[in-house]
Amino acid sequence: MFTAEHTLRVRYGETDQMNVVYHANYATYFEVGRTEAIRTLGLSYREMEEMGVEMPVTELTIRYLRAARYDDLLTVRTQLRQLPERYSIDFHQDILNERGKLIASGKVTLFFLDRTTRKRVRMPESLHQRLAPFFAQDTRD
Amino acid sequence: MFTAEHTLRVRYGETDQMNVVYHANYATYFEVGRTEAIRTLGLSYREMEEMGVEMPVTELTIRYLRAARYDDLLTVRTQLRQLPERYSIDFHQDILNERGKLIASGKVTLFFLDRTTRKRVRMPESLHQRLAPFFAQDTRD
Amino acid sequence: MFTAEHTLRVRYGETDQMNVVYHANYATYFEVGRTEAIRTLGLSYREMEEMGVEMPVTELTIRYLRAARYDDLLTVRTQLRQLPERYSIDFHQDILNERGKLIASGKVTLFFLDRTTRKRVRMPESLHQRLAPFFAQDTRD
Amino acid sequence: MFTAEHTLRVRYGETDQMNVVYHANYATYFEVGRTEAIRTLGLSYREMEEMGVEMPVTELTIRYLRAARYDDLLTVRTQLRQLPERYSIDFHQDILNERGKLIASGKVTLFFLDRTTRKRVRMPESLHQRLAPFFAQDTRD
Repeated sequence: MFTAEHTLRVRYGETDQMNVVYHANYATYFEVGRTEAIRTLGLSYREMEEMGVEMPVTELTIRYLRAARYDDLLTVRTQLRQLPERYSIDFHQDILNERGKLIASGKVTLFFLDRTTRKRVRMPESLHQRLAPFFAQDTRD
Repeated sequence: MFTAEHTLRVRYGETDQMNVVYHANYATYFEVGRTEAIRTLGLSYREMEEMGVEMPVTELTIRYLRAARYDDLLTVRTQLRQLPERYSIDFHQDILNERGKLIASGKVTLFFLDRTTRKRVRMPESLHQRLAPFFAQDTRD
Repeated sequence: MFTAEHTLRVRYGETDQMNVVYHANYATYFEVGRTEAIRTLGLSYREMEEMGVEMPVTELTIRYLRAARYDDLLTVRTQLRQLPERYSIDFHQDILNERGKLIASGKVTLFFLDRTTRKRVRMPESLHQRLAPFFAQDTRD
Repeated sequence: MFTAEHTLRVRYGETDQMNVVYHANYATYFEVGRTEAIRTLGLSYREMEEMGVEMPVTELTIRYLRAARYDDLLTVRTQLRQLPERYSIDFHQDILNERGKLIASGKVTLFFLDRTTRKRVRMPESLHQRLAPFFAQDTRD
C-alpha cells in the first residue's frame, strides 16, 4: 500500500454561508492531495502531462462526516491500496482535522489518457516503477 | 417521482487546462440544479434556510462520462425517486449536453438540520406538502 | 457606446461565511457578462478563440458598494465606451441587484492575443464590424 | 512598512483552458497572502472575526503581467505602506514566480466592520499594537 499525507489550510473563499467549507471544495482538496502524493514519489503530475499522459477523473465519491471551517489546518491522506494494472487508478482519500478527527472520506477513480491519440493507456512506466516497491506481491508482466 | 430540469452555460473559469470543465464544478452544477428544482415547487431553498432548516450534503457520487466544454449549454436533470420520510433526502442528478448526451450522472444525499438546535429534523412541512402529490402512494402519517 | 445586460443568480458556493458573495466571484460575474455581451453581437467568444484569438485580462478594478447574497438575481451591465483601435479593449462593468441598486462597479482591460504567434494583435475584424455601428464617429482606417 | 511573504502552489482547478491561472483566482491568492501576513504578527484573521470585527473588501485592483501555470510555486508578498489610522486599510500585494519574476501586482482596500452593529470601526487595538512597531513615526493619539 502507498500512503501520503499533505496539509492545507482552509481559505476564506472556500467557506459558504453555512460557515463551513462548501462541499464541492473537498474534491479540490482531494486533487491537491493526489498531486502532492505523486510528488513524494519524485515525480510530478505536471511532468506526466508534459510526457503526454492526462488523468481525467471518471468517478468521485465523498462522504461528509464533520464540518471543516475557515483557517482549519486539514490533512489530506491519499492511499493506493493496490497497484493499478490496467487503465484506471483508484485513490482512497481521507481528510482529517487538527485533532485527527475524520472530516470526509472518499474514493476517486481516474484513467490514463494519451494526450495525442485520446485513447486510454496503461500507467506510465515512470510512475509504475516508483509505485511498485510499495506493493510487495506486485508481478506486473 | 419528481423531476425538474435547469439549463446553465459553462463559464470560462470553470474549465481547466485539459480544456474541459474541472471535475469539482459538477458538484456545483448539481447544487444549482437542486436549488432550481425546489424553486419549481413554488418554494426556495433560501426561504427554507430563513425558516430555520439547513441542508448539508452528507454524500456525493459523480460518474463522469463525457467532457463538458466552455460555453456548452448544459441541462441539469434533478430527480427525487421517493418521498423522503425521515432525516435525509436523495437527489439523483444527471447532466446532459445540447445533443442530449449524458455528460455525468450522480447522487447527492443531504439531511435536514435545524439551524438553532443543530439537530437532524424531518423534511419541513412546506416542502413535504409540495412534493407529496408527485408520489401517488405516499402515506406519511 | 455599446451596452449589454445579462442576469445571473448567485449560487450557494459563491457565498462565504460573511453571508455575502465572496469578493473574487465578482470577477467571474464580469467575465460572464462579457461573454454574453459579445453573444448579443451574433458572435461568441468561443468562436473567437477557435478562430485563433485569445483575450487575456491585463487589468481588473472592482469597487464593492453593497453586498450580494445567495439566490439574488443580479444584472451584469457591460459597456464599451469607445471602439478599441489597437491591441487592448476596456470593458466598464456594473452589477445591480433586483431593486436596481448598484452592487459593484469595475473596469476590465483585456488584450487580443494571437494563439499561434503569442503576439498582440488588433481586434478581429469579425468583432470590429459588429461593434462599429454602435460608435457613430468611428473611422477605422 | 510591514511586509510578509507566503508561498502557495497553483492547483489544477485554478487553471483555465488558456493553460494559465484563471484571472479571478489572483484575488484569492491575495486573500491567502493577507491571512498569512496577519498570522506572522501573532494574530489570526479568524480570531479577529471571533472578536467581532469583519473586514470586507471595498476595492480591488490587479495588474496582470505574466502568466502563472499549474504547479507553479508562487510567492505572495503583502505590504502595508502606512499604518491605517481610520476605518480602512490598504494592502499592496505582489505575486512572484519561482524565478522572482513579477506575475501580478495589486492593491486591496478593506474596511473594519463591527459584526454586531454593522458599522465601520477603527482597526482593532490588538492588530494596531502589533503593527505599530513597523511604522517608526507612528503617533496614534
